[in-house]
Amino acid sequence: MAQRVISPERLRAFSDGVIAIIVTIMVLELKIPEHVGDKGLVNGLLIPLAPKLACYAMSFLVVVTMWGNHYALMATVRDVTRTILWLNNHLLFWMSLIPFATGFLGDNPRLADGYAVYGFVLTASVASFALMRWHGVTQDREDPELARVHRQVLKKSVLATVLYVSAIPLAYVSIWIAIAIFIAIPVMFFLPIFAHRGDA
Amino acid sequence: MAQRVISPERLRAFSDGVIAIIVTIMVLELKIPEHVGDKGLVNGLLIPLAPKLACYAMSFLVVVTMWGNHYALMATVRDVTRTILWLNNHLLFWMSLIPFATGFLGDNPRLADGYAVYGFVLTASVASFALMRWHGVTQDREDPELARVHRQVLKKSVLATVLYVSAIPLAYVSIWIAIAIFIAIPVMFFLPIFAHRGDA
Amino acid sequence: MAQRVISPERLRAFSDGVIAIIVTIMVLELKIPEHVGDKGLVNGLLIPLAPKLACYAMSFLVVVTMWGNHYALMATVRDVTRTILWLNNHLLFWMSLIPFATGFLGDNPRLADGYAVYGFVLTASVASFALMRWHGVTQDREDPELARVHRQVLKKSVLATVLYVSAIPLAYVSIWIAIAIFIAIPVMFFLPIFAHRGDA
Amino acid sequence: MAQRVISPERLRAFSDGVIAIIVTIMVLELKIPEHVGDKGLVNGLLIPLAPKLACYAMSFLVVVTMWGNHYALMATVRDVTRTILWLNNHLLFWMSLIPFATGFLGDNPRLADGYAVYGFVLTASVASFALMRWHGVTQDREDPELARVHRQVLKKSVLATVLYVSAIPLAYVSIWIAIAIFIAIPVMFFLPIFAHRGDA
Repeated sequence: MAQRVISPERLRAFSDGVIAIIVTIMVLELKIPEHVGDKGLVNGLLIPLAPKLACYAMSFLVVVTMWGNHYALMATVRDVTRTILWLNNHLLFWMSLIPFATGFLGDNPRLADGYAVYGFVLTASVASFALMRWHGVTQDREDPELARVHRQVLKKSVLATVLYVSAIPLAYVSIWIAIAIFIAIPVMFFLPIFAHRGDA
Repeated sequence: MAQRVISPERLRAFSDGVIAIIVTIMVLELKIPEHVGDKGLVNGLLIPLAPKLACYAMSFLVVVTMWGNHYALMATVRDVTRTILWLNNHLLFWMSLIPFATGFLGDNPRLADGYAVYGFVLTASVASFALMRWHGVTQDREDPELARVHRQVLKKSVLATVLYVSAIPLAYVSIWIAIAIFIAIPVMFFLPIFAHRGDA
Repeated sequence: MAQRVISPERLRAFSDGVIAIIVTIMVLELKIPEHVGDKGLVNGLLIPLAPKLACYAMSFLVVVTMWGNHYALMATVRDVTRTILWLNNHLLFWMSLIPFATGFLGDNPRLADGYAVYGFVLTASVASFALMRWHGVTQDREDPELARVHRQVLKKSVLATVLYVSAIPLAYVSIWIAIAIFIAIPVMFFLPIFAHRGDA
Repeated sequence: MAQRVISPERLRAFSDGVIAIIVTIMVLELKIPEHVGDKGLVNGLLIPLAPKLACYAMSFLVVVTMWGNHYALMATVRDVTRTILWLNNHLLFWMSLIPFATGFLGDNPRLADGYAVYGFVLTASVASFALMRWHGVTQDREDPELARVHRQVLKKSVLATVLYVSAIPLAYVSIWIAIAIFIAIPVMFFLPIFAHRGDA
């Protein structure tokens, strides 16, 4: 009765749809300032909008990187068990809060609280990825090559979780430490994500 | 002239798209409070936002559970008749009101009215599922195994409908009864949804 | 060089995505009224929201009916020519204005202007369908059965266009005439849309 | 280990989803004016909304043209390398700012600043297309026919980039020059996009 189990293609398509919407509705947080004409382009638009635009760009980078990782993760799933389905729903829930955290940070770019909230949502998202990879490690033991990939990505996900969670208190020391962490993690992730192709 | 009938794949993809948008635009109801800096993270953000976040999480749970059920339902459809097409449109209509009901409840977390409206929209959504399953029972008589599954899910859908509808008056007795019902139903649904796989 | 032509599947999937978003973002026009608690459920929510909800339900009916018709239309397309691509873009443009017209009508339910604007957007949408069917008639001459279907639907689309366009001046006579037309057309369309299956 | 590379179909579907959302959420910038009843349809709705509607129509034309070009581009991709993935993300980032630029221009239709911002976002988007085509030229050297198509489209993309970038300073000379450029480019693009089919 395979038809009653959700197919990996379907789960992937649904998740892709949700992620595509997440990444695109974030742009709705870029509210257009009023009375720009009185103040000129620089003072009326660019200066008030700069932190929001920077946050949007950062979150865009984060979400498309997560999309790539989600794709890589889904490619390892043969059967969507109920556990995988709910681990995936759990991941999408935290990712769906990224537009909110982005908007809040963009509104409060000098406030450590903004970085703490943003760091919390990213921590939860990346921890959800780690949980799925950990589940993969326990499930795919009979396939040593796949288990090795799961463990490798799991290590990176745990590292990213630790870094993001550390950004929460560190934001209260200096927001620049938090910013450095937020930018370093997607770069760390997207650089070697397909690097194991070289040894294939 | 099979080409003029909507294929099940197409109906599923369209429905998935609508459900993915429903689940994601709900996050737009999480309006960012202003002047957080003056009040601090707890008083300025977490306390005012807590009921909205809780409602969002609850509705996320409801909608992804419905998505799973919709998937399971669509997997039983071979030919999309006009009746199935319109029963599905009817279901999507009520589901599309969930973001509104969520936003209203999140704005009015102490008001029984909020729970009544939320309960009404969920009642209508689950009743639409029951209607589709009931249609399935009448259509798939010649396949006893499939008809048995339809009847089994129909029973659960009718139970959920009765519980949700009872949440409407009970919210005026105590909002906590309504909350208990709202959380119990998705849990009841997602737990045994694929349970019959065991006896397959 | 077939790869440079857009495949019908792709055009269908893109159009389905746009239509799914159109039908779902309309619900964002249902703004949640404030201070409901002071006024009670009926005076605070149901009475102010009733016209908006009715408009939303009507537009939901219109758009899902158009989706069914778009599906039926796309099923007749083998090669996506540049003409078909742009006729389809033209159709999606007008359909994308339906959420705006719905919101405007919902805000101004007693104003003939609201019905005129709504009627105009629906006229343009249905006329775009008629244009596509008329193009189909000229393209598919060598397939008499297909050309017959095109002509049959074209007739209905022209009738719908004439009715919608007549709703614009008639709204200034009585808004009830406009309402009757707006409801009659989707009913007329969804009833016999697959009726020719009987004689297949 | 092909499974860990993103398939072209997947990248296309994700990009199509993002572009479908971009083109549709732009309509949310068409805010419904209040108190239309007091001022009449022309003064209350059409006159204040005309520039926004014109901007929306222009951006709709721009985005669906870009969608067609994106489709044509993706049709040439056999293997999604990390470079292509990130060039595509880069493109989607700039395209995702089009709704913002459209809303800003629609709010400030007499201000050269609006045209400058709009021109900047379109410049960045078209330059991203040019970058992808330039990458294609360097990648597909062994396929002379494909390389020829890449070079041909690259030339047009570079021309469009130069025209859009020139619209930024020219908007300060006259907004009508900027408008002429904004309309000319999609027309130039959609006219000959499939023209080489003739010589196939």
